[in-house]
Amino acid sequence: MEPTTFVLFGATGDLAKRKIYPALYNLFVDGKLPDSFSLFGLGRREWTDESFQANVERSVREFSRREAKNDGSLERFARAFRYQVLDIGREEDYERLLGRIEQRERELDARPNRLFYLSVGPEFFEPIAANILASGLGSEEGWKRLVIEKPFGHDLPSARELNRKLSQTFAEEEIFRIDHYLGKPMVQKMGALQQANPVIQALWTNRYIANVQITASETVGVEERAGYYDHVGAVRDMFQNHMLQLLMMAAIHLPHESSSEQVRFKKQRIMQAVAPLQKQDVAASVVRGQYAAGEVSGKQVVGYLSEPGIAADSSNDTFIAARLEIDDHYWRGVPFYIRTGKRMKEKSTRIVVEFKEPLQQPSQGLGAPNLLVFEIGPKEGITLQLNSKEGDEFKPLHVELHGSQDDVPEAYENLIHDALRGDGTFFAHWDEVELSWQWVQPILDAFAENLLPLQTYAAGSYGPTESDALLAQDGYRWWFDEELETNANKGEQYAYNANY
Amino acid sequence: MEPTTFVLFGATGDLAKRKIYPALYNLFVDGKLPDSFSLFGLGRREWTDESFQANVERSVREFSRREAKNDGSLERFARAFRYQVLDIGREEDYERLLGRIEQRERELDARPNRLFYLSVGPEFFEPIAANILASGLGSEEGWKRLVIEKPFGHDLPSARELNRKLSQTFAEEEIFRIDHYLGKPMVQKMGALQQANPVIQALWTNRYIANVQITASETVGVEERAGYYDHVGAVRDMFQNHMLQLLMMAAIHLPHESSSEQVRFKKQRIMQAVAPLQKQDVAASVVRGQYAAGEVSGKQVVGYLSEPGIAADSSNDTFIAARLEIDDHYWRGVPFYIRTGKRMKEKSTRIVVEFKEPLQQPSQGLGAPNLLVFEIGPKEGITLQLNSKEGDEFKPLHVELHGSQDDVPEAYENLIHDALRGDGTFFAHWDEVELSWQWVQPILDAFAENLLPLQTYAAGSYGPTESDALLAQDGYRWWFDEELETNANKGEQYAYNANY
Repeated sequence: MEPTTFVLFGATGDLAKRKIYPALYNLFVDGKLPDSFSLFGLGRREWTDESFQANVERSVREFSRREAKNDGSLERFARAFRYQVLDIGREEDYERLLGRIEQRERELDARPNRLFYLSVGPEFFEPIAANILASGLGSEEGWKRLVIEKPFGHDLPSARELNRKLSQTFAEEEIFRIDHYLGKPMVQKMGALQQANPVIQALWTNRYIANVQITASETVGVEERAGYYDHVGAVRDMFQNHMLQLLMMAAIHLPHESSSEQVRFKKQRIMQAVAPLQKQDVAASVVRGQYAAGEVSGKQVVGYLSEPGIAADSSNDTFIAARLEIDDHYWRGVPFYIRTGKRMKEKSTRIVVEFKEPLQQPSQGLGAPNLLVFEIGPKEGITLQLNSKEGDEFKPLHVELHGSQDDVPEAYENLIHDALRGDGTFFAHWDEVELSWQWVQPILDAFAENLLPLQTYAAGSYGPTESDALLAQDGYRWWFDEELETNANKGEQYAYNANY
Repeated sequence: MEPTTFVLFGATGDLAKRKIYPALYNLFVDGKLPDSFSLFGLGRREWTDESFQANVERSVREFSRREAKNDGSLERFARAFRYQVLDIGREEDYERLLGRIEQRERELDARPNRLFYLSVGPEFFEPIAANILASGLGSEEGWKRLVIEKPFGHDLPSARELNRKLSQTFAEEEIFRIDHYLGKPMVQKMGALQQANPVIQALWTNRYIANVQITASETVGVEERAGYYDHVGAVRDMFQNHMLQLLMMAAIHLPHESSSEQVRFKKQRIMQAVAPLQKQDVAASVVRGQYAAGEVSGKQVVGYLSEPGIAADSSNDTFIAARLEIDDHYWRGVPFYIRTGKRMKEKSTRIVVEFKEPLQQPSQGLGAPNLLVFEIGPKEGITLQLNSKEGDEFKPLHVELHGSQDDVPEAYENLIHDALRGDGTFFAHWDEVELSWQWVQPILDAFAENLLPLQTYAAGSYGPTESDALLAQDGYRWWFDEELETNANKGEQYAYNANY
């Protein structure tokens, strides 16, 4: 790997402490950092190199997935870290930083390859990028890269504006937009499983797949992010980015040898093919929900409107479910159901691929539909659910294609490593981001104009019953919701397909 | 289950002792015998009911898969057994038997349902059937069934003649031809796995399957059956019956609800579609082998011609491999390779379904072809071989769809139970038997006329190299032959498809 200077904005922040330093340490232990590696941490606090290094060591000790060894490796790791006070708006600070970086590069006889990691609020993306340009921090002699995290815009116009500004300093191939769902091992395995196995590939079409269900449910409420979340909602916080990225990864057909460019192209093609919504039709395929008081894991919790920091009359969405169709050769006629929400029954990120029954008639005891289940978090695994015959009876047979493995790299390790290597495969590219906002924009408008009802759901449930109805009208149901108890509790019945 | 009288010809024989009594006992323990059940054992030896019962108890103690309990159940089981001396040619013996059976049925107040099990040489099938007819043993008041074992004929004309004669006494639906390969649990699961799983069903065509390989290899030589075997060979002993039945079971497409009639019809359709051979073309798709001296499991063994009881100039086949094509909508273009032989490297009955690579180009490290492997014996199991990605590398992933289960019913239990219930699903029907002989007849003729060379193979190998060449010419190889060592030993090289 090429010599790299890692320039970290927000070095005193929480994400850096919990995720970035531990990830870098684990890469260091695995020999996955460049031989010549320096990190410049930037923040407003008056830290020194020494206090910064001590902080880094502390965060590794506390948050690393692997315990820090007492063999001096942690100290050696931390020795690559420098700190500088930086006021994001002050040009001189960038110039001073450049001086220190250049000096360090001279000491190491390293080319000026610089990775700028912006672990700061999105309002700082633009001034930082502008100052990088103005100060000459991005040298012509080496490469420069920008790593940023969500949110990337608040809606379609603001996302476009942000991208326009960033692109004055960074070319698209220099921008690495982290969507940490794309760093999760099981998400990365979805494509590979299909790519390397003709039998999975063969099944990956509307000929055999009945529907795809993507769930990301949380048990937590808004927590300390109330002020932010109340202006964002589930649609922006989860749906536009993570959920649509999962949709693309589930629907992708990778060629045998797939470059980052090809992955990007394929994802773009999928998002382009997602049938667009009109604002006035949103209500037919989207469910907007907000949690009421209820019980989560045996604990009484308040409703969203009673959370500290939330406006008492807020109509913000803490749940969204949607039915999408990808209108292409592979997926025409296969509904993709997506739901995500807070204060739900269980914490789970999961993709369920339900296969078609070849006959319309009920299958008379031949068992349940075949399912391919990707458990992305907190459990990990890929399971194929078949039917087996024991004696004269058919019984479900759960075949594990991939179990959870101990001690796998965390999403941040994978992604930082990829950014250091310049591999953009598992990052969100501008086309995808723009197309996602474009698809979501009518929903944002419909929510803003109250064109569809805000459904409430009890905390600790699987969301509003309307979310179940979204599938029931097509003859399906959400798999693995315990005994449909949400509906049972509410005394409602759905006439599911006789197969189930 | 209906009251049944089980009339066993050959009651003092080896098969009865080793297989039939233990099977009946295990059915008894599982409550799978009719409540009203009597067995009449017939033989030439001068046994009494008591000595017969003692013999039955002894055979159960010695050969049952489950230990006989000491709770009196074995004695209760044996109490249903009666013995009668019977000379197969003597009409009076049948009349006396009828008298005893009728008396027993009166005692039990049972309808005259009689199952005739012929555990005797095939030369006795016809006289027994004729005497059953003449003596009135098959009563009009109940049902009658005939259970027989291979061989069913020596060639097409003799099989037809035998069937013509049996059918004077028994209708086709009353004849249960045991092919014990059809009683094996994994063979019975093959159809069910596909039937109950749309994802397997979807793959079960020439669109996705490259070839199917059916192997039944033995390590033993001719053993005590030399005189018989030398007139029969692998083609009659294994190929015409067991191997072609396995072919039918592998190729079958079962509807969701499949009756015995439907299974029979589907198998018939498959055999009808197997592209026929002409005598003069046999050499192109059949390999005929005979074992020479060699080493099996570390032990030196003599060649076939040196076996006791074998003619010194015998050209009998102890190995046969063949390439078949089923010329129907599902299987056109998919070669089915079959091989069976004695004195081979390992004892194994196995079906390997190799899936196509979607691209012709070598798959560049994406792994081996996907395989679905049915291990039928002596190990049992169904395994799907996929490719998995660990880090940047693809590795084979073996997924067990069905493991070997402890204490499963033996083939004979399954089959006798089915015959008692009148379920003919897993028996060889006349259409199949006739079509199999018809397909095999040109091979018999070609062998007899020496139209293809008799290849020798070292005992303890995987058969003649010509068997490997049969696949190599299509770009394939026999899966799971250890490192192709047969060929390597002989200094030969095959240019396999670059994928492998």
